Amino acid sequence: MQCLQGTAIRLVEQRTPTHVRAIDDAIACEVPVALHYNDVPFAVLMATPCDLADLALGFSLSEAIIEAGDAWQLDDVREELEGFIVNMRIPAARAEKLFQRSRSMLSYGGCGICGSASIEGVMRMPAQISSQLSVDEAALHRALDALHEQQPLNAETGATHAAGFANASGGMLLVREDVGRHNALDKLIGGLHNANIPACDGFAITTSRASFELAMKAAQIGIPLLAAISAPTTLAIALAQSSGLGLVGFARDKQCVVYAHPHRLRRITP
Amino acid sequence: MQCLQGTAIRLVEQRTPTHVRAIDDAIACEVPVALHYNDVPFAVLMATPCDLADLALGFSLSEAIIEAGDAWQLDDVREELEGFIVNMRIPAARAEKLFQRSRSMLSYGGCGICGSASIEGVMRMPAQISSQLSVDEAALHRALDALHEQQPLNAETGATHAAGFANASGGMLLVREDVGRHNALDKLIGGLHNANIPACDGFAITTSRASFELAMKAAQIGIPLLAAISAPTTLAIALAQSSGLGLVGFARDKQCVVYAHPHRLRRITP
Repeated sequence: MQCLQGTAIRLVEQRTPTHVRAIDDAIACEVPVALHYNDVPFAVLMATPCDLADLALGFSLSEAIIEAGDAWQLDDVREELEGFIVNMRIPAARAEKLFQRSRSMLSYGGCGICGSASIEGVMRMPAQISSQLSVDEAALHRALDALHEQQPLNAETGATHAAGFANASGGMLLVREDVGRHNALDKLIGGLHNANIPACDGFAITTSRASFELAMKAAQIGIPLLAAISAPTTLAIALAQSSGLGLVGFARDKQCVVYAHPHRLRRITP
Repeated sequence: MQCLQGTAIRLVEQRTPTHVRAIDDAIACEVPVALHYNDVPFAVLMATPCDLADLALGFSLSEAIIEAGDAWQLDDVREELEGFIVNMRIPAARAEKLFQRSRSMLSYGGCGICGSASIEGVMRMPAQISSQLSVDEAALHRALDALHEQQPLNAETGATHAAGFANASGGMLLVREDVGRHNALDKLIGGLHNANIPACDGFAITTSRASFELAMKAAQIGIPLLAAISAPTTLAIALAQSSGLGLVGFARDKQCVVYAHPHRLRRITP
């Protein structure tokens, strides 16, 4: 499962105001990853093929297909056509509910949150986040610095997003990368679960904007604070406000803007 | 249909190393937009609610739901819950094919290209692009400059992507914005069709990375050259190479990297 592909494209031309030269560029790998539950195809994600077990588990949790206490098992990951098939085993009752849900949808999509044909299907509300977490602003900036240094794939390709999870002191515990920002967060969520790191005890950072789907995934698994290096959208803010998720945008250059639940980001007077 | 929302969030705090101040920030609107064909729900996009008619038409074309010569009519756009329902009328045979396609899919997703449960469903191959277009590199940079000046929503919010279409001389003909990069391109495609601007006679620019879905949408409607200000992915390059789509990445600061069909971007020796 290679995440980089540096040799397949020989015709790359780098053009500057004064030169044209052939280069051997490192490109981030993007392949279709089909998620199967109990041997039944469910969805295809376009993803970077590393940490696929984390991706599959994180997606299952963040999309409320299973709950944290449910049995979940990775049956196998196999290469097929130009992508991968990841088959998971989940409790029969969960699978039944899942496929009832999808059978009732006529769905398709070219956007972030698809697969629902109805607005009600999209606007589900996660449980209220119970964590009392409040983080020093300095801890956020420490975690941001650490995140920037722990993106080997992006350093090579300039094409990938990252999601990181830090403890309340800003110590970076886990980072995951992917061409898709949803996938990076799902890989992180799966990785946290595998490592028995409680989502309620720290905060997440994404290198992207804070859109509705990212806020939803974070809230669904009980992450109390989500910081994005770019802007949030209206719906992400609304979801954060109503679910107890602290939402921070434009977190960069030692600055930030707090859009929901400002108590979750404590300011220590200098 | 407001695209900006500047007053709904009163708790916004801007924090700098020395100050915390309350600000009234402009936020890009993101709402669920349900696409219905012939009164049947098909998909929900998370989108910025402007140019919805362009979005609906562009999505229909770029996802191969209709072809350019087909009858297509916007029946109505109505507000519902926190979003919009856009109902379109398409030929009965197209609708039947579409819903057969979706009934055969168990689908869901948290990524760009979902709604297909099988990898074969994702990897469809658009027709070979027949346009002979070749563009001066200087024209690309002129168009990039113009695009940066024609993003009013992003200038206010810092949260939106844009897609622009320029003629072979680099004259910017049409720009569309959205929180989602797929939506911005679909709005552009719909807008081009409405304005009778042939896709084969110019080139498109996106403010995002060049992922598989964007390359697919561009190739599907016969745009001969797609330039992205950020990186491409492996699959976008593979699709561009096999479909005749010129693909340019990192198009910024008067530089660029050409990943497929370099003849489509002519260099004039200074």
